[in-house]
Amino acid sequence: MTPHITGTTRLLVVLGDPVAQVRAPSLVNPLLARLGVDAVLVPVHAPAGRLGTIVRGLRALGNLDGMLVTVPHKIAICAYADELSPAARLAGCVNALRREPDGRWRGDNFDGAGFVRGLSAAGHDPAGRRVLLVGAGGAGRAVAVALLEAGAARLTVRDVDVGRRAELVERLRAVWPDRIEAAPDGGHVVGERPGGGHVDADIAVNATPLGMRPDDPLPLRPGSLRPGTVVADVIMRPRRTSLLAAAAAAGHPVHHGGHMLDHQLDLYRRFFRLDERKADT
Amino acid sequence: MTPHITGTTRLLVVLGDPVAQVRAPSLVNPLLARLGVDAVLVPVHAPAGRLGTIVRGLRALGNLDGMLVTVPHKIAICAYADELSPAARLAGCVNALRREPDGRWRGDNFDGAGFVRGLSAAGHDPAGRRVLLVGAGGAGRAVAVALLEAGAARLTVRDVDVGRRAELVERLRAVWPDRIEAAPDGGHVVGERPGGGHVDADIAVNATPLGMRPDDPLPLRPGSLRPGTVVADVIMRPRRTSLLAAAAAAGHPVHHGGHMLDHQLDLYRRFFRLDERKADT
Repeated sequence: MTPHITGTTRLLVVLGDPVAQVRAPSLVNPLLARLGVDAVLVPVHAPAGRLGTIVRGLRALGNLDGMLVTVPHKIAICAYADELSPAARLAGCVNALRREPDGRWRGDNFDGAGFVRGLSAAGHDPAGRRVLLVGAGGAGRAVAVALLEAGAARLTVRDVDVGRRAELVERLRAVWPDRIEAAPDGGHVVGERPGGGHVDADIAVNATPLGMRPDDPLPLRPGSLRPGTVVADVIMRPRRTSLLAAAAAAGHPVHHGGHMLDHQLDLYRRFFRLDERKADT
Repeated sequence: MTPHITGTTRLLVVLGDPVAQVRAPSLVNPLLARLGVDAVLVPVHAPAGRLGTIVRGLRALGNLDGMLVTVPHKIAICAYADELSPAARLAGCVNALRREPDGRWRGDNFDGAGFVRGLSAAGHDPAGRRVLLVGAGGAGRAVAVALLEAGAARLTVRDVDVGRRAELVERLRAVWPDRIEAAPDGGHVVGERPGGGHVDADIAVNATPLGMRPDDPLPLRPGSLRPGTVVADVIMRPRRTSLLAAAAAAGHPVHHGGHMLDHQLDLYRRFFRLDERKADT
């Protein structure tokens, strides 16, 4: 169900490059229609090199109330927010911005909270668990913050970009000194730990974009995990990534990327004040 | 009926300030849905001082295929088109832009053609008629070109901005030397011609924004027209402007602004190549 669009309809956008894979319009528009909010969410393809021009243009619109942000813009978009929530500041990345009544744009991040809510709802509460996180980019940072906030006992971070990995570990170690570490290797595709043996994790999370395209290499090798490790992905489309397929084939419980967004819907609803606006109309 | 929106949906926008009154979404979206074109038209409130920032941002979008343009941007938007159709160049204003396959943006203008089509369909073919046109802004220029192209015998132009009026008359006189003239007075609200007597016109057209707000003065006084003069408005909302109400009360045939847009729908359909895109999907 899509909201009816007239000249008074307010706009929300979801920014990405690519953007064809985003699921937000299919989730948010039916909610807007159901609540009777005169607003619509549309996809905006923002090629990476043009993000600044596009966001300056969008901010100038008189009828844009909010933006959702996806790959690869979640870090770069921070520069265009006037203020950041504590979660967004800690993660150094933003996946939602709203226009405040005074015209300022506030950035927040619900990826991490959505991911942890989804994980818990599926019976994989991360409290007290050891987690391997692959990917210290936009989604990875948000997931890292939320896992530690939710009480993960130890978070091990891998990223092919060792500088980015080190930066995230250092930043979060300032808040959670004993619970975060860099993995001994930096690569996306990793085998066993040096010296052999299994990676010691209860939950392994892919937060890289690897798996969006069919010919992507695996972000981690399920064979390197000990039996019983839950394998989770943040990629929503395809639903069944190569990683999840390989993990399931190896007997691991798997957790799909779609849960992360499904569990963000309530958070968006509050952030964009949809219920207040419903009452207004 | 609104098109279903997903990540692959292409965008069309209608730009205005204000934008709440635009009818284009209500006309174009059902057409898109009916044709099965994966695209949606949304309103964009572009405050006048921010047009450049907004259009630069919109042009940078990877999934924007076209823009419709309304008050007050039809003249200023020309600066952001890479090329103009002959009609748009002659009128000096644009109400539609599309992205060409090579990425260039082409501006065209269908206000005039839509207005004349609507007038003819209502039995008021302007060929051989004398027309009084009030307003030499964006809509007025387009209507002037189309009326002369359609064979109006004489077009008399009024505008409170005498420089703008003179510029339009001079420009069109280069193409139609004997058929266009400036009215002897420049004001929006005019009484009789100096010296008394009725304005000698078969059709009188309001192409000013006067009438969008309930407390606007009348753009012309129906009492100054001879009996039988058709009074036409380009304002779409309200449907029954103060001018048309006064004209009808004085016994004049009236022609609503909505006809102009209704008769543009086929022109937009061709300009935005909607039928080709239907075949693609």
